[in-house]
Amino acid sequence: MGAEIITIGDELVSGKVVDTNSAYISRRLPTVGLDVGYHTSVGDSEKDISQALRRALNRSQVVIVCGGLGPTVDDITREVAAKVVRQPLVKNEEALNSIKERFARRGLEMTPNNEKQALFPLRAELIPNSLGTAWGFLLRERGSLLFFLPGVPRELEGMVEERIIPLLSKERKGRVYIRSRVLKTFGLTESKLDELLRGATGKRKNVKLGFLPKFPTNQIRIVVRSSSEGEALRVLSQVEKELERRVGDYIFGRDEETLEGVVGRLLKENQATISVAESCTGGLIGHRLTNVPGSSEYFIGGVIGYNNQAKINLLNVSPETLRKHGAVSRQTAVEMARGVRSLHKTTLGLAVTGIAGPSGGSPEKPVGTVFIALVDEERTKVDGYHFGGSREQVKALSSQSALDWVRRYLKKS
Amino acid sequence: MGAEIITIGDELVSGKVVDTNSAYISRRLPTVGLDVGYHTSVGDSEKDISQALRRALNRSQVVIVCGGLGPTVDDITREVAAKVVRQPLVKNEEALNSIKERFARRGLEMTPNNEKQALFPLRAELIPNSLGTAWGFLLRERGSLLFFLPGVPRELEGMVEERIIPLLSKERKGRVYIRSRVLKTFGLTESKLDELLRGATGKRKNVKLGFLPKFPTNQIRIVVRSSSEGEALRVLSQVEKELERRVGDYIFGRDEETLEGVVGRLLKENQATISVAESCTGGLIGHRLTNVPGSSEYFIGGVIGYNNQAKINLLNVSPETLRKHGAVSRQTAVEMARGVRSLHKTTLGLAVTGIAGPSGGSPEKPVGTVFIALVDEERTKVDGYHFGGSREQVKALSSQSALDWVRRYLKKS
Repeated sequence: MGAEIITIGDELVSGKVVDTNSAYISRRLPTVGLDVGYHTSVGDSEKDISQALRRALNRSQVVIVCGGLGPTVDDITREVAAKVVRQPLVKNEEALNSIKERFARRGLEMTPNNEKQALFPLRAELIPNSLGTAWGFLLRERGSLLFFLPGVPRELEGMVEERIIPLLSKERKGRVYIRSRVLKTFGLTESKLDELLRGATGKRKNVKLGFLPKFPTNQIRIVVRSSSEGEALRVLSQVEKELERRVGDYIFGRDEETLEGVVGRLLKENQATISVAESCTGGLIGHRLTNVPGSSEYFIGGVIGYNNQAKINLLNVSPETLRKHGAVSRQTAVEMARGVRSLHKTTLGLAVTGIAGPSGGSPEKPVGTVFIALVDEERTKVDGYHFGGSREQVKALSSQSALDWVRRYLKKS
Repeated sequence: MGAEIITIGDELVSGKVVDTNSAYISRRLPTVGLDVGYHTSVGDSEKDISQALRRALNRSQVVIVCGGLGPTVDDITREVAAKVVRQPLVKNEEALNSIKERFARRGLEMTPNNEKQALFPLRAELIPNSLGTAWGFLLRERGSLLFFLPGVPRELEGMVEERIIPLLSKERKGRVYIRSRVLKTFGLTESKLDELLRGATGKRKNVKLGFLPKFPTNQIRIVVRSSSEGEALRVLSQVEKELERRVGDYIFGRDEETLEGVVGRLLKENQATISVAESCTGGLIGHRLTNVPGSSEYFIGGVIGYNNQAKINLLNVSPETLRKHGAVSRQTAVEMARGVRSLHKTTLGLAVTGIAGPSGGSPEKPVGTVFIALVDEERTKVDGYHFGGSREQVKALSSQSALDWVRRYLKKS
C-alpha cells in the first residue's frame, strides 16, 4: 500500500492546463518513504470525484487530493469529501477569520461565496494556507490518510513542504526509505544501454533501474529501497559506481544537471573561455550556453554565419576553401572554429556547419550531414556526422554533439 | 460515454516526468466530438495497467493508452493489452521490416530486444510510427476503441494528428461536427483578453471560447459545434472575424503558426533580409529564426556579442557609447542593430541587449531591463522593457518581443 494522487478540475481533463502538481508531490513523497502508484485526474463532477476517492481509499495508505477547494459553484471537493466519509460540513471560525483578515488586508470586500471556504468535514484536521484563502484538511478514514489541498501550484507546494511532509515523516517513522539518482547519457541507443546494464544490480532485490529516452539523450534512473537511510544511500552509491564503470564517459550529468551546465562548470574549473561559430544550428549553441547563470564568465560571443559571405567576412574563412570543399565540409568547419577563436581571443573555438534540411541536401551531402570542429591554441579536432530526423532534431543533435565534445575535451585536460 | 486517457510509466508516477500527453490529447479530441473525462497514470506494473484498462473499457467509448511500447523489459503494455483482450501476441512482418530498415538507415545494429516491438495482439489494427520504432495499435473490444501509442511526445503527437484524429473523425461520422481555431496573441494579459472578448460570441450557444496561457503567449481557442460541417465553418469564421476586430494586431498567428514562421513569411513577401545582434538572448533569436525551413533565404547571419569587446570589434559599437551609457542602453542597442545590418548588408538589423539575471542588475537597471532596436535604411526604432521572471523567461520574452517588432514592422510596410 503506497500513496496516490487525485487532481480535480475540468481544466485538467480538457487539457487546458497541464497537471504539474502530481509530479511535484510524487517527487517529494519518497523522502518520507512513500511511493506513488497512481495519478488520477477527474472533472468537477460529484460522481467522478466520489468514485475516485472511494477507489483510492481501497488501495492506498496515503491519498492526496488537489483542487476544487475554491469559492465558486464548480468547486465541490469539500462537499463530496464530507459525503464520502459521512460527516457533516461545519464552519471553522479560525479559518473564517483568517479569510476575512486576508480580504481586509488587501482592502477587498469578502463575498458570501468565500464563506464556503471555512466549511470542513466535522472531524477534519485543518491545514492552514499562508498564501491563499483555500485551507486544506486531513481526514483519517479506514486506516488511510486523506489530504485535501488547493490546486494552485504555489499554494499547494507551500503546504506540502510546511505541513504534509513533516506530518507524514512523523506518522511514518520506521518505514521504508527510497533514494534515487538519474544518470544522463548521450551517444548510446536505449537498447545498447539496456545491454550494457544487464545484470548490473547483481542479486540486489531492493534496486530498480529504469530508462527514460529524452531526445537527444537517454536517462538511467536508479531507485533503492531500504529500511535504513544510510543503507539506501550506500547501495545507491555502489550501484552508481557500477553503472559508471559500464557506461563510462557517455554519462554527461546527474539528476538536475544539464550538458550546458556541466560544460560551464568545467570551463570555469579550467579557467577557459569559449566562442562559437554556428551555421546550421543558427544560434542554438549560444542560446544553450547562455541559459546557464553566470555564463558571461566564460562565453565570450559567437557568430551566426548562415551564408558564405558571413563566413568569409566575419570568420575569415577563405573563399578558396568554400569553393573547393563547400560550406558544409571539414575544412570550412576548421576555418570557422579558428576564425571565431581568434576573433574573440578565447581558449576554445567551436564551430558547426551542416544541412539541417528538409531541403538543401545532395547525394554526397544528404540532409543531416554536419561537421563539427573544436580548436585550441595547438590542437584541432574535426569530424562529420550523418544525423537523422527533422530540422529541429538535426539542430538539437548538432548542438548536443558539439557541447559534448567540449565536455570531453575539458575532462581530459 | 466519452473518452479517457491512460499514461503508463514509473517515470510518471514517480514525478520524474510531467505528463503532457494527456493534456495534448484532451485538447485534440473535442475536434472529433469527444470529451475526455479521466486521466490516469500508473507505473510499469502488470496489475495496475490491467486494472486501469478494464476500468476504462467499462466506462469509456474511446480509450487512449500512452507509453510502455519500448524495447526494454519494463515496457509491458503490449503484453498486458493482449491478456486483457484474450488474444495472443503475433509477430507482424511489416512492422519488423520497418524497424530493421530504421536501424539499417542509421548504420546501427538491431538488438534482439527490438524485435519485441514487432509483436501485436492478434486482431490489432496497426498504427505506423514514422518517427520511431514503437508502432501503435488499435483494439476494438466490447464496443470501445482502445488505442495504444508510444509515450514519446513527438512520436505520439505525430500519430494522433496523422492517424487517430482522421480515424476517429471517420468512425464518428454523423455525429456532431466540431471545428476549432486557435488565435495566438502576444502582449496582452489573460484578464485583459478576457475583458476584450466579453460577449464576443453573442447569443450563439454552440460556440465556446477558451484561453490557454502558453508562456510568453496567450492563446484563444474558438470551438464551434454543429450538426453540419458547413454551418460549423461559417460560424467559426464569423466568430474569428469578431475576435480579430476586438483583439487586433496582438494576434500574431493561427493554429500551428509560430511567430518566427510568420516573420519568415512576411520577410519573403517583402523580399527583405534580416541579421541579428544578440546580447542577453545569446543566440535564441537566431535559433528561432533558423527553426523555419528555408530561412536561409532571408536570415543572413548574426553576432552574439556577449561582452563589450565583442560589441566593439564586430558590431562597431563605439567605446564612448559603452562608457557613457553602458552595454545595456538605448544607444548601444541602436549601434548594435546598425552595426550588424551594415556587416551583413541586410534590409533590417535587429538588436537586443539586456540583463537576463539572476545577477548583474543594479538599482537603475534591474534584472529584466532589456533594450531592443530595429533599423532599416532610414528608420530606427528603439525601446526599453522591464521584464519579470527567471533568466530563461527574460530571454524568451526578449526574443518574442524582438520578433514581434519585426512582424509589426513588416505588416505595415
